[in-house]
Amino acid sequence: MSIQHTVVFRLVHAAGSAEEAEFLDTGRTTLTAIPGVTDFHVSRQVSAESDLAWQFSMVFADQSAYDAYNTHPAHVGFVQSRWVPEVEAFQEYDFVTR
Amino acid sequence: MSIQHTVVFRLVHAAGSAEEAEFLDTGRTTLTAIPGVTDFHVSRQVSAESDLAWQFSMVFADQSAYDAYNTHPAHVGFVQSRWVPEVEAFQEYDFVTR
Repeated sequence: MSIQHTVVFRLVHAAGSAEEAEFLDTGRTTLTAIPGVTDFHVSRQVSAESDLAWQFSMVFADQSAYDAYNTHPAHVGFVQSRWVPEVEAFQEYDFVTR
Repeated sequence: MSIQHTVVFRLVHAAGSAEEAEFLDTGRTTLTAIPGVTDFHVSRQVSAESDLAWQFSMVFADQSAYDAYNTHPAHVGFVQSRWVPEVEAFQEYDFVTR
């Protein structure tokens, strides 16, 4: 059963800044290069009910593809070098068909 | 620009209970009957990073379709009669293309 992995987040960078755009672009480039990542989307979060501003969403065919992504060096490296210093707040959700 | 409206939530009902299934079924039936609601999905939230258990997701073609849904009597009635008494916690997010 496929799994939609999502994270909603807010950056330390100002809205509309070059740093924001570069983070989103690099996130897409880095994460979509990891085997098993499909249907990758960067979306803007616009509900006033949340103070988080962006979402990364991707789909894995199964849990083993998801596990391989989590431990892939490109993912681990992105989290350490970019996510931790540049993301101010975030919330993960993973969705499967009811 | 289309808008994906989502809400992640936890019910007062026990996991796997008939009350849980009935709430999810009635939510689907009630909300999909409202004009402008498209691509409606009920998903199970499975990340251990969140204690919310379900997601309703739907897509509106534009803000005016979303506004009409928000004020539609079937939506307002569902919120008052079912959502408020049966939902223990929730978080809304709305997504648009970056």
